[in-house]
Amino acid sequence: MTGIATTGLVCPTPIGSVDRVQLGHGSGGKMSAALIRDRFLPRFGNDVLAQLGDAATLELPHGRIAVSTDTFVVSPLEFPGGNIGALAVHGTVNDLSMMGAEPRYLTAGFVLEEGLPFEVLDRVVATMATAAREAGVLLVTGDTKVVERGRADGMYVNTTGIGLLDDAVRPGPHRAKPGDAVLVSGQLGRHGMAVMAFREGLAFESTITSDTASLAPLVRLLKDAVSSELRVLRDPTRGGAASALNEIAQASGVGITLEERRLPVPTDVAAACEMLGLDPLYVANEGVLLAFVPGPLAEEALAAMRSHPLGAHAARIGEVVAKHPGMVVLRTGLGGTRVVDMLPGDQLPRIC
Amino acid sequence: MTGIATTGLVCPTPIGSVDRVQLGHGSGGKMSAALIRDRFLPRFGNDVLAQLGDAATLELPHGRIAVSTDTFVVSPLEFPGGNIGALAVHGTVNDLSMMGAEPRYLTAGFVLEEGLPFEVLDRVVATMATAAREAGVLLVTGDTKVVERGRADGMYVNTTGIGLLDDAVRPGPHRAKPGDAVLVSGQLGRHGMAVMAFREGLAFESTITSDTASLAPLVRLLKDAVSSELRVLRDPTRGGAASALNEIAQASGVGITLEERRLPVPTDVAAACEMLGLDPLYVANEGVLLAFVPGPLAEEALAAMRSHPLGAHAARIGEVVAKHPGMVVLRTGLGGTRVVDMLPGDQLPRIC
Repeated sequence: MTGIATTGLVCPTPIGSVDRVQLGHGSGGKMSAALIRDRFLPRFGNDVLAQLGDAATLELPHGRIAVSTDTFVVSPLEFPGGNIGALAVHGTVNDLSMMGAEPRYLTAGFVLEEGLPFEVLDRVVATMATAAREAGVLLVTGDTKVVERGRADGMYVNTTGIGLLDDAVRPGPHRAKPGDAVLVSGQLGRHGMAVMAFREGLAFESTITSDTASLAPLVRLLKDAVSSELRVLRDPTRGGAASALNEIAQASGVGITLEERRLPVPTDVAAACEMLGLDPLYVANEGVLLAFVPGPLAEEALAAMRSHPLGAHAARIGEVVAKHPGMVVLRTGLGGTRVVDMLPGDQLPRIC
Repeated sequence: MTGIATTGLVCPTPIGSVDRVQLGHGSGGKMSAALIRDRFLPRFGNDVLAQLGDAATLELPHGRIAVSTDTFVVSPLEFPGGNIGALAVHGTVNDLSMMGAEPRYLTAGFVLEEGLPFEVLDRVVATMATAAREAGVLLVTGDTKVVERGRADGMYVNTTGIGLLDDAVRPGPHRAKPGDAVLVSGQLGRHGMAVMAFREGLAFESTITSDTASLAPLVRLLKDAVSSELRVLRDPTRGGAASALNEIAQASGVGITLEERRLPVPTDVAAACEMLGLDPLYVANEGVLLAFVPGPLAEEALAAMRSHPLGAHAARIGEVVAKHPGMVVLRTGLGGTRVVDMLPGDQLPRIC
């Protein structure tokens, strides 16, 4: 079965084009059923999803849950180090992790463009399935719509995640306090520059790869290391570390100082940013977290992160201070200082 | 504050165009923050959403929950009787209701097209807020992305809903039994024909309006009337009543017979379908449910639905039979019969 029913009475089911998405795949009829049966279920299959109801039924343990939603519109769909499917799982799972929650369930909503090659869809779905398995989340229900050629740039993917909150560890952007250390789990700027360089056909000595990854393992290690003293967690995606730190400074009413020489910006990202006139502090990351812990616990937290491959480049990049509340200030390599403001608009559109 | 920051260092923030969506509104920077603060929060505002975290925190009572996701790509965005915002709330809330669940929470993911007039966005958001309030659901978290002109046909909206399941009433498509009555809560074919007629500029004597509505009140009345004997609930959206009934016949391994003369198809819908060569049984509805109850309880269930304005046209349209399992058969007005099969593809694309 190829996804094409052969009893076609109805116009948008041309026979022959069996390797691409067609409008009929969004019909709710036999072609929709075949698309789900042939291309989604074999990858995502699990007992909840296989019921194919209009909604999934979940049994949750008693307690609070976290819910997060994100739509992914990255262009191009595939890039060095990942694709839209990897982002769609990691992005939402990481938003749950940043609440201190344990990610459990995911829904997926696809907008597919007529003409999208099935081989691309299959690769994206396979990547989503692997990413979900690795992150320990179950895809429990989904939806597929099809729009005409040119109307969705290949595909857009929404994921909504549900996680179980931890009553003992409740990080929040308002909990930063003077004396906290600002830690970062890995190198800055890789995701945004990987997509940008690939999209623009820029050639550097090495290919910059996206850092897209689930941060759940690092959060577990941090919880074990510092427990409720894990005050703030944030994954600096759109808008980069600069935007995330500004939001935290404002939510907590504190100042943040950063040391430029401590920022773990890889050489290739730094070179690409320099060439394009971009600041790596504003470039999106998809597998990096910012953690705020009391200064005396910083070394323990760093050691915990460094025990995992994802945290190999973990670094202490700054401090929370009482002065200049609501502002992020960078001490440059030359000893000067400059304010790291939030940008009004995009450095890099369509990055996630 | 108009949504335009004036300290623009960065290209996609043209000054001046303050009445339309711009790429910078999807940046995660100041323009994104302004969009959310100025256009979403005032409409959707509630304590959970106002925290603006990467995820919402929900306190759920002990028990099972239902989760449903749906992306809406209707074209045009506004049509007689509703808009994409009304559909995005009702569609997802109704999927939860059809599980017998009480809808409680909603997430919203917007893909906005550069150039979308704010007045359109504002109307859609206002309609969503009203629909959510009327349906008794709280919008708890959201996401906004912006894509270039031409890449999202105005806007696409994903909603994901969470509802509380009822342990006493658990309808399911596999629970139909011979002897059950097949009931419909209202007139068939209105939503699909409203969008279609409007999109194609077809003029009929009266304007056909969409039936988009939350079905939760009708489900509550049905539960009160027949409790656990509410065996199957289904909202016949994409693919219409024919597709929904075929799925139920297959899931339950039963036959379904319909009486053509009992189908509540309004005159204007019937005329429009005739003119376009469409069958109202395949046309999408967004405010109608199919309910299966044991034959002897049919009158009680109908009376319950008719006590609510949404159920004014409720009718018994058929029976579940043991013969021809997996098939839906229509007895025509002339006394003949014909098989009502599932269509392969679309009668009407981009209807929801």
